[in-house]
Amino acid sequence: MNCIIASTSTVHGSDYLGYFPDALTELFKGVNEIIFIPYARPGGLTHDEYTQKAQDGLRFLNINVVGIHQKEDPKTAIKNAEAIFTGGGNTFLLVSQLYQKDVMQILSEKVKSGCAYLGTSAGSNICGKTMNTTNDMPIVHPPSFKTLGLFPFNINPHYLDPDPSSTHKGETRETRIKEFQNLQKTPVVGLREGSWLRIKNNDILLKGGLKARVFIPQRDPIEVEPNYSFKDLS
Amino acid sequence: MNCIIASTSTVHGSDYLGYFPDALTELFKGVNEIIFIPYARPGGLTHDEYTQKAQDGLRFLNINVVGIHQKEDPKTAIKNAEAIFTGGGNTFLLVSQLYQKDVMQILSEKVKSGCAYLGTSAGSNICGKTMNTTNDMPIVHPPSFKTLGLFPFNINPHYLDPDPSSTHKGETRETRIKEFQNLQKTPVVGLREGSWLRIKNNDILLKGGLKARVFIPQRDPIEVEPNYSFKDLS
Repeated sequence: MNCIIASTSTVHGSDYLGYFPDALTELFKGVNEIIFIPYARPGGLTHDEYTQKAQDGLRFLNINVVGIHQKEDPKTAIKNAEAIFTGGGNTFLLVSQLYQKDVMQILSEKVKSGCAYLGTSAGSNICGKTMNTTNDMPIVHPPSFKTLGLFPFNINPHYLDPDPSSTHKGETRETRIKEFQNLQKTPVVGLREGSWLRIKNNDILLKGGLKARVFIPQRDPIEVEPNYSFKDLS
Repeated sequence: MNCIIASTSTVHGSDYLGYFPDALTELFKGVNEIIFIPYARPGGLTHDEYTQKAQDGLRFLNINVVGIHQKEDPKTAIKNAEAIFTGGGNTFLLVSQLYQKDVMQILSEKVKSGCAYLGTSAGSNICGKTMNTTNDMPIVHPPSFKTLGLFPFNINPHYLDPDPSSTHKGETRETRIKEFQNLQKTPVVGLREGSWLRIKNNDILLKGGLKARVFIPQRDPIEVEPNYSFKDLS
């Protein structure tokens, strides 16, 4: 596989997709057209506008970005894609749309076959076994939480450390992930904003200069350093 | 109806259920036994332990608290209940369990018929039309997001105002609620911790000394004062 699975599209103080140009250049080397999947967007921007935003963010690559909604048939668009980018938004909406258009399986097979793939936020959430560890609000009801399954663990993007000064009684992110693991024995990688996973040559490496927090069921969470390999995490 | 629908069970610096004793005394006046629904709890405490916690929190009322799981049949327990308390935890798990045990409809009818009902957090989320505006992580997949429908709007418990100093790129609560309303035209009441709705005599009043934030589709959110009536919100 050949993927970048990023916690976020944008970090504080950077433009959209502006914080990891070298990684994007390497990922999309030799590509002439990227199919953009805007389905996660729950409003604010139309699919056309969101695709334009992706095109603008990737302008430095000199690659054409085409919205999947601008193609005649989404299945064929994925099958024929040179590269795919799924943008962020709401994971429930994204997964609902992928099932509604019957492309979840095709997208999984395409990425597993080696097609260059970029995911940010919701577009990264769908790379794991399931979307059970999204932070998003359940604004629609997808028929299933099963996702692309590129690896045998889940992602928690926008990972946030507990705030020791908070008086709020809502659960911390860590508590939520541990509650998930009381029900399902799936490891979870908490990716902080500015981090991404690089899948290449049968390896899965942490990139971006920050540590990640890894939750393995029935163990204490661990912190792992950049370039840590998740190849054996299952 | 005769309900207290509370944002949270516990506010900073108080014991479990310790911040609104007068309201609980009034709600449960004349009641000998409360059926406690512990289904939202995703671990940490067993159902027995969680029921004991509810009993301890309500000890000042001198009312017996019995877990629904301790009764022979959950449907009969609800049908025969004098009063019902649904505790917090994970709303996805709670809703999944209510459907699995086939008691969602019976619970709705029972509360609508006037049975005293206390909900906190997840137990409050289920009082609205749907659970689409929960903050919880989707750790299980319920067959539907439809909930008790005691009123024609939704609750967002533990409502949090945006933090203007935050550099985090995850969506604010307000953004998430507005994204929900791009898809469904359901009003949402953001209940801050320490607030509750009091349903009595065909009215629904805001209680607890704090303002609430009300989201009506396609309008700017409004702040409403304690004792505001939500009777006409739909």
